[in-house]
Amino acid sequence: MPPVRRNSTITYILAGILCIFFLYFFFGDSTSIPSFPNAPKQLIHSKQAASNALSPPSLPFIKPAKLGPDEVPAPPPVVHYQMNNVTTSSTPIENHETILILTPLARFYQEYWDNLCKLSYPHDLISLGFIIPKGREGNLATQQLQERIQKTQHPSNKDRFASITILRQDTEPITAQAEADRHALTVQKERRAAMSRARNSLLFTTLGPTTSWVLWLDSDIIETPASLIQDLASHNKPVIVPNCFQRYYNKEEEAWMTRPYDFNSWQDSATAQGLAEQMGPDEILLEGYAEMATFRSLMAYMGDPTSDPRAEVDLDGVGGTALLVKAEVHRDGAMFPPFPFYHLIETEGFAKMAHRLGWKSYGLPNYFVYHYNE
Amino acid sequence: MPPVRRNSTITYILAGILCIFFLYFFFGDSTSIPSFPNAPKQLIHSKQAASNALSPPSLPFIKPAKLGPDEVPAPPPVVHYQMNNVTTSSTPIENHETILILTPLARFYQEYWDNLCKLSYPHDLISLGFIIPKGREGNLATQQLQERIQKTQHPSNKDRFASITILRQDTEPITAQAEADRHALTVQKERRAAMSRARNSLLFTTLGPTTSWVLWLDSDIIETPASLIQDLASHNKPVIVPNCFQRYYNKEEEAWMTRPYDFNSWQDSATAQGLAEQMGPDEILLEGYAEMATFRSLMAYMGDPTSDPRAEVDLDGVGGTALLVKAEVHRDGAMFPPFPFYHLIETEGFAKMAHRLGWKSYGLPNYFVYHYNE
Repeated sequence: MPPVRRNSTITYILAGILCIFFLYFFFGDSTSIPSFPNAPKQLIHSKQAASNALSPPSLPFIKPAKLGPDEVPAPPPVVHYQMNNVTTSSTPIENHETILILTPLARFYQEYWDNLCKLSYPHDLISLGFIIPKGREGNLATQQLQERIQKTQHPSNKDRFASITILRQDTEPITAQAEADRHALTVQKERRAAMSRARNSLLFTTLGPTTSWVLWLDSDIIETPASLIQDLASHNKPVIVPNCFQRYYNKEEEAWMTRPYDFNSWQDSATAQGLAEQMGPDEILLEGYAEMATFRSLMAYMGDPTSDPRAEVDLDGVGGTALLVKAEVHRDGAMFPPFPFYHLIETEGFAKMAHRLGWKSYGLPNYFVYHYNE
Repeated sequence: MPPVRRNSTITYILAGILCIFFLYFFFGDSTSIPSFPNAPKQLIHSKQAASNALSPPSLPFIKPAKLGPDEVPAPPPVVHYQMNNVTTSSTPIENHETILILTPLARFYQEYWDNLCKLSYPHDLISLGFIIPKGREGNLATQQLQERIQKTQHPSNKDRFASITILRQDTEPITAQAEADRHALTVQKERRAAMSRARNSLLFTTLGPTTSWVLWLDSDIIETPASLIQDLASHNKPVIVPNCFQRYYNKEEEAWMTRPYDFNSWQDSATAQGLAEQMGPDEILLEGYAEMATFRSLMAYMGDPTSDPRAEVDLDGVGGTALLVKAEVHRDGAMFPPFPFYHLIETEGFAKMAHRLGWKSYGLPNYFVYHYNE
């Protein structure tokens, strides 16, 4: 084919030039940010900004009460973030990836806090966020949390967390949540819609541009492996959930045993899809109720302590008792729908929304965390 | 009815006690936060925390390079927010309500910045957030923005803003957006999905617990009344949008005239709902295309400069060129769906999502802002 041969030198030169252009535009962005020799010192660039645990870490614009005739107030901050410097990888410690642990807190469990403090991920890369309802029970939980924070965050404690944010909601919890009531089908929709709003408030106000990961951890999760964050992150998945079980004392066997607790992590079924198709726009599918048999494959029943804890399964719905999410999934818009979204709400609706945004969810059936036993 | 009379004294006493309990729990939350006489100084309480322009304003956990034998590192922050101290009212200046102005910035227009600087809302209550795409055009826009920021945010300028956050995306813009291409029906879906993700990234990372209002202001809005924020907020609506027009020179008339620009603010029609019902799950309705006549009532055509600028209309879809949102609407979970949500995306999908969360949208047909004329 002579014409191809004839043009090959020019083709190679053109290809080479294109290649240089490509490399320039591909890498140029993160390496050749326009720099200003006269830029004021308050222009913080990405390298420094990325060291902020939560963000935006903007300092308040404080007007000093008194200013001398020649004094000017402190300069307000300008913070510049390069989103492509924020990685989420399977080796988060090596890459200094920050994680935000978010917990809707209705009751304070000592065992939750103790387990949190034992997490082996570097605590200076961990920020904590809590949202606590209004009212007497919330006041008590706040007081108990703050008492523990005083000890844990004491300057002399080298193992303290990067920062802690506590939001007090302006709403009371929906119902007096006696544990027996909590799971009644009729109150589930209202309760989980309120929980979705709480999760969203917490998420929207604490997520920052430098956050790599978000770990949702319910306040009644009292036991996890110390390496929980590293273990989940090592799978390098957009959304990943361990299997949430509960320890209980079996009187007949006279032994401590475990049983499945969280039934919100599942693989969809034709039956469930069929049920959804026949539903009105405001109706929702709920899992774990005899009145509404979905025949979904529940991760809760796939757990086997003797099998590989690194085994993965695809999931269509996820529970939120412990749930690791790449921050970019949330930044893209994935939140916890308080309204029926494809007939799903809260964490199950979140998995569906993440999926609509192009992010898949995974579960680890043989990797366990444990829920408080009421 | 003797039994009622007989018990009336006891009833009144019981009612009185209940009333006191009620008042205690209702108001107690914001006024009688448990206080700890021995609380460390880093426990910042809501009064101070509320003065932060952006949030969470957590300082980074900085490990000093060298510490003396008796020195301890600076204490990490714990920030406590009372959400019911954050108001959104019709008199935002009097209530010191903070506003976050969010702008997806593809090109920098001098007139946009000049108009922004002329806004008469107190600038120490205004925080700015920008998101700028990767690539050469984004680099140029960043450079131009930073040059203007240096002047505006100079410590000697008493009229500077509370804080500024600039996010550089890790993605390039979808297409070379020649203005002629931008509105082609076929590229609209992809373009608006990308814009939704940009808006969400900006929103999720800059919204804080102390933000009262969010003003979405496109980078090509070059003229608004100086009192834009006060004017829109005075209506005290969850979501409110002015009418976005464009000035142009009419050669025949030899005069400057105005014409409608933003067609995304509308009241729904039976025709549009019928079209949506026949669509596949991934198809979207778009406004302003002859190929897809929706017969919706467009706010763009309701504008009358001689009529009351305070006149309100209900809206089902909103545009985002200028759009004021109560922060609690976003905190509840309302974002900009990049996927078809009831066959709507981006700002129109946002209005639908806000509605699903119980928040209504309104428009001001006779209150105008002006778009750049390409």
